[in-house]
Formats: sequence, structure tokens, C-alpha cells
Amino acid sequence: MINFKSSHGILTINLQALADNYNLFKKQTGSNDAVAGVVKANAYGLGLKKVTDKLKELNCPQFFVATLDEAIELRSYNNQTPIAVVNGLMNGVEKEYLEHNILPVLNTPDDIQRWQNIAHKKNEKLPSIIHFDTGMNRLGLSAAETDTLVEDIKTIDGLDVQIIMSHFACADEKDHPLTQQQADTFAELAKHFPHAKKSLANSPGLYRDQAYHYDIVRPGYALYGGNPTPELDNPMNSVVTLSTRILQIRECKKGESIGYGASHKFEKDTRTATIALGYADGFLRSNSGSAIVYYNGQPCPVLGRVSMDLVTVDLSNIKENPPKQNDSIEILGSNQTIDALAETAGTIGYEILTSLGHRYKREYI
Amino acid sequence: MINFKSSHGILTINLQALADNYNLFKKQTGSNDAVAGVVKANAYGLGLKKVTDKLKELNCPQFFVATLDEAIELRSYNNQTPIAVVNGLMNGVEKEYLEHNILPVLNTPDDIQRWQNIAHKKNEKLPSIIHFDTGMNRLGLSAAETDTLVEDIKTIDGLDVQIIMSHFACADEKDHPLTQQQADTFAELAKHFPHAKKSLANSPGLYRDQAYHYDIVRPGYALYGGNPTPELDNPMNSVVTLSTRILQIRECKKGESIGYGASHKFEKDTRTATIALGYADGFLRSNSGSAIVYYNGQPCPVLGRVSMDLVTVDLSNIKENPPKQNDSIEILGSNQTIDALAETAGTIGYEILTSLGHRYKREYI
Repeated sequence: MINFKSSHGILTINLQALADNYNLFKKQTGSNDAVAGVVKANAYGLGLKKVTDKLKELNCPQFFVATLDEAIELRSYNNQTPIAVVNGLMNGVEKEYLEHNILPVLNTPDDIQRWQNIAHKKNEKLPSIIHFDTGMNRLGLSAAETDTLVEDIKTIDGLDVQIIMSHFACADEKDHPLTQQQADTFAELAKHFPHAKKSLANSPGLYRDQAYHYDIVRPGYALYGGNPTPELDNPMNSVVTLSTRILQIRECKKGESIGYGASHKFEKDTRTATIALGYADGFLRSNSGSAIVYYNGQPCPVLGRVSMDLVTVDLSNIKENPPKQNDSIEILGSNQTIDALAETAGTIGYEILTSLGHRYKREYI
Repeated sequence: MINFKSSHGILTINLQALADNYNLFKKQTGSNDAVAGVVKANAYGLGLKKVTDKLKELNCPQFFVATLDEAIELRSYNNQTPIAVVNGLMNGVEKEYLEHNILPVLNTPDDIQRWQNIAHKKNEKLPSIIHFDTGMNRLGLSAAETDTLVEDIKTIDGLDVQIIMSHFACADEKDHPLTQQQADTFAELAKHFPHAKKSLANSPGLYRDQAYHYDIVRPGYALYGGNPTPELDNPMNSVVTLSTRILQIRECKKGESIGYGASHKFEKDTRTATIALGYADGFLRSNSGSAIVYYNGQPCPVLGRVSMDLVTVDLSNIKENPPKQNDSIEILGSNQTIDALAETAGTIGYEILTSLGHRYKREYI
């Protein structure tokens, strides 16, 4: 039984499990320096400093974040590891990249031009990553822009292109035809950059084909325990557990309703628990009437709508040792993975992680 | 045009609009000291300190938060205003309520018993709020527990019951029968507490009937600009605006797809923008393929899946002055309310507010 010292739930983050996952990627790639750490969005909600400190211990050679602000924060406690900003070279703040020794991922001709201009002014080659779009249609040079670039490669004479990268759109779906198509496109353009490291595979890509590994793999979700290959058992170690407490036990009567909108009506007398958890904690409101939480390993379905700070659950399944006020309820843990909770919420485990709220007491083990 | 100094979006919180809303509630209740501030969940995501400092200026007589941690934080910068914890008297940390001068909302017989025990030990009456459930079936004494209590009211001789309260389940739906039924139940039990203040109405309850106002109203959502009466025009002033920037413009070709899962296929050549915004910012993944954002007042529908840090949108509607990389895109503002964005995300504006992410630059005006 958890001893609650906080007034709300407890989120446990297992840094050893995270390290074990990282070491699995090393084994998978057969390399000690090919596994980058994708730590954008506060390390998928799990704490940028704690996660990157652990990855630094494991000699992680490269970090990827989404925004310049994240990069500057990470640089404030890590002055060694290269840090790349995947959302690009933000306009108007280019000198911050130089000042904090941060690698821009150049996504557009405009990104390239602005970085080149600075290189020319400084009269030195500037470290950079170029992102080529191979079918995601989100960020990176388009096919046409790529053609223009490789036809006249001296237009990037101011750049020290350290890495070229692309990103899979559908690698989580086994045998999706777009994946191999993207890989083929990437293989072609890689020929034009013999001196740059190549990076293509995200978490699922890493598990789909050794040929996708190249020099740097970029696992994010799998590092944090998510299943990179949904059609198979999860090869990763679970990193997070989440528990909260029961605030009240209630005996609801047949014919009564529960929660906002009175959306759930009781067809029989039902014992319920109201627990300290809500959508303000990132327990998505789309869990209303669908998610399951666990009491001593026994499933308790969510009844009615998820409130901002509260959730009501059905205790009918629990025949022996009925729960009491203040007892612990498991949201994520041995009975429920992030992937499983995502399914009842109608989303993906990535959003479960990045939504994890700030009222939980965070404990690192 | 917004001058981006941060690498991500900009969230503007208009404290004057919030003050105007607060003053509307004063006018609505005809009282200067009947309007409590519901500031749980970091003031619905808008910043506990900034919001409560503003409400203190306006002589707000009472704050309601959800958890003890929130109350202790608020007490650290406000040593005057009474603070109540609606999620109850957390077991094991009762003395913290005394130490920080925080009012527990007693929801259960067990809450009452533990608070009484402390009162008896200290040999003084302890300030408290009792919450009676009148049909929400979430927190508060049940009908049976209420009967037991009022039949032998001296069992709470250790309590200085300052407020009795209940909470509406369906007041946002005009003429929902449960609302008047709850009000009738509350009116009956109020007779047993002639010396306590009475509190029943939340944001919608405040607008449904003057008879629901009693001594203390508890608007939350409407304070932050949400519509308390969805079937009518919103009487409140909008408090938040949210903008972000375009990272890349792309010309997608007929037959191509966009984003994860390649879920959107283009039926014609289409110009798109990839913008700095994602579900890690609380732009819910359920906005995939459904939400609309705005460029210079012109609607840009979201295409395909929302990613963690990125969203792609359709620029086909924009015929003149086409957007460029780095231009500003409105998510919330004069073209889109929190209620409107909630509708396309399949949720309520309350979740839009509490999900507002931490990578935005927050500006208070």
C-alpha cells in the first residue's frame, strides 16, 4: 500500500528501466554510439534533467529536442552532448543557437539560407543537420527542394553538414508500403552526403529493419517504455507507474445517475469510489465511461464523465476486502500499460505520457 | 503580427478581462462579498499566483482549490483570504491544514470524524465546510449520511461549520430536471444549518436562477471566459488568446499523404503549413483532422494527425497574401473561443484550459 504524503497521485519514473531500454537499443543496433536520445517535450513528460542525466551516464552521443527553449534548458545542465532542435532554425533567434552551441535541424530553404548567411559573415563552416522529407509531408526539404539542393551542392558551402535525417510516417504499422518507399528515397539522397552521418529510424523504425539503422537511431517512445511494434509483445521495460487514492466510497442506488451531465444511470445498486484524478492531471476526458483503473489487481471501470479533479469508478467487481477511503488505486503499472490506457482513451501512449500532469508527486527510482 | 521571442507559441492571459468577469458576477449576485474564486488546477491552467493576486485586489472573500498542495502554494503568497480544499481532508496530513490555516471541505463521515478528533484534542471548534451530495454522486455526504448527521447534529459539536455546500451536475443544460431537484434538496437541508453560509451555484448555476445564489457562488469556468450557458451567447469576456508560428510552407501533390499513419490523402495539389504546436502543448490529439486554426482571420483546417510538437494545416482557403514561414497562426482569439475549439476536439472548454501547455510563452496583460 502506498503511503501518500502528497494530497494527490504519485507518479513513479523508473530510471533504471529507462537505462535498460537504452541498452537494448545499443544491443539492437550493435553499436555503442549510434543511439541518440529523443528528449523533446520535457523527455515525453518524464523530466528533461533526470532523463538526460541518466542518458549522459550511458554515454548517449546526441540529444534531439523540439524547440530552442528546450535546447537552452538542456544546455544549462549539460555542456558536452550535442543537442539538435528538430523544429528548425527559428527566425529571429539564430544567434541563440550559436551562443548555446545548439545544432539547428535545417528544414527549409529559408532555414538553410539564414544559417548560410551567418556562416558567411563569420567566415566559418557552421555545424548543422539537414532534414529531408521523404513522405511525411511535415518538416524537411521537399522532393523538389532536395533536387535543387543536390544538383548544386556548393550552395551549402557554408554548412558543416554533420547529419542528414528523415522521419518515418507509418513505421508503427508492420509492412506499411510507405516505410520502404521512404527508406529507398533516403538511401538515394544519402549518396550525395558521403561525409555526413545518416539518421532515419524512430522507435518503430529501429525494430522494423536493420537497414534503417544507419549511423544514428532516434528512439523516443520506446525509450520511455512504449511498444514500438504494436502487433507484437512489447520488448521494452515499463518506465512509469501512476497511483492515486480513493477520496470517498459511495453506495449509489438503482435509478440514480453519476457525475456531470448525469451521463451514467445505475441499473442496479452499485458501490463506487471517487478518486483523486482528473483531466487537469492529464487523465484525458475521453476516458469518460471507457477507461479502467485497478484496485489490488481488480478492474474498476470509470463511470460517467471524467471531471477536472475527480473520477468515479465502479467497484462491483471487487468481492472480497472491499476498498476503503484513502486506499490506493493503480492507473498505470503492472495491470495497465501506457499503451492499454491509450486504447481506452482513443489515443496513443505518446499522448498519455506527454499529458502526465503536474499535481502528481514525482518519484524517481 | 506577433514578434516571436520564444521558439514556440504565445499564450496571452488578459487579467483585466478576468477582473471584468469577476465584476459581472458581483453585479449578477448584487453582492460585494458573495463571489468566491474557484482557482483549482493552477487557476484552470492560467496561473494560480497571477489570478489570485488579481482576485485579491477585487476583494475576493474565499478561494476554492482541489488539493492540499494547491492550498499550501496559494497560502505561501496570500496569508489573508480563506482557502478551502474541495477534495476533502486528506488522510495522514490533517495537521498541515491547521498549520497553513486551510479549510477542509468535509466530504465523508470519516473526514468529519478525523477533524472532530483533532478539535476534541485541541479543545476548540475547528473551522470547516461540509459538502452534501444532492445528486452528483461524486463527493459529499450521501442522502443517508446526511440524514444521520442532521438527526443528531450534536455529533459535530467540534466543528465550526462556516459553510455548507453542494454541487450541480447538469446546470449547464438549460432546464435539466436534476438541477431544480438538487436545489430543492439543498434548500431542505440548509434549514438545519441556520448559522452557516450556504453555497450551491457553479458557473452555470449562477446564471440559471437567482435562487441558487445563496451566500457564496463559486464560478470557475465563466471567470476564465467560458460560456456558462451554452444555449445562449456567451456573456463573459474572453481571457485567453493563443498564437503560434508557421515553421514550413509545403506544396503537397495530389495522391500524397500527410503526417503519421498517412491518414490524410490529398485529392488535389494543396498548399499546407506545418505549425509549432502539438499534443505535448495540450492541443489534444483528438483535434486530428477536425480542428480549425486561423491565418489573418481565414480558416485553416487541420490535416491528418496532430503530432507531439507539430500540426499540419490546409491553406487552400487563403487566396490573397499567402502565408510565409514564421507568420503567426491564431489558435484561440477573436476567431476562435475555447468553447469552439473544444467542440472540434470533442471535449469541453474546461479541458482546453487545463491542458494549455508549458512550452508557450505566457504573457499577462
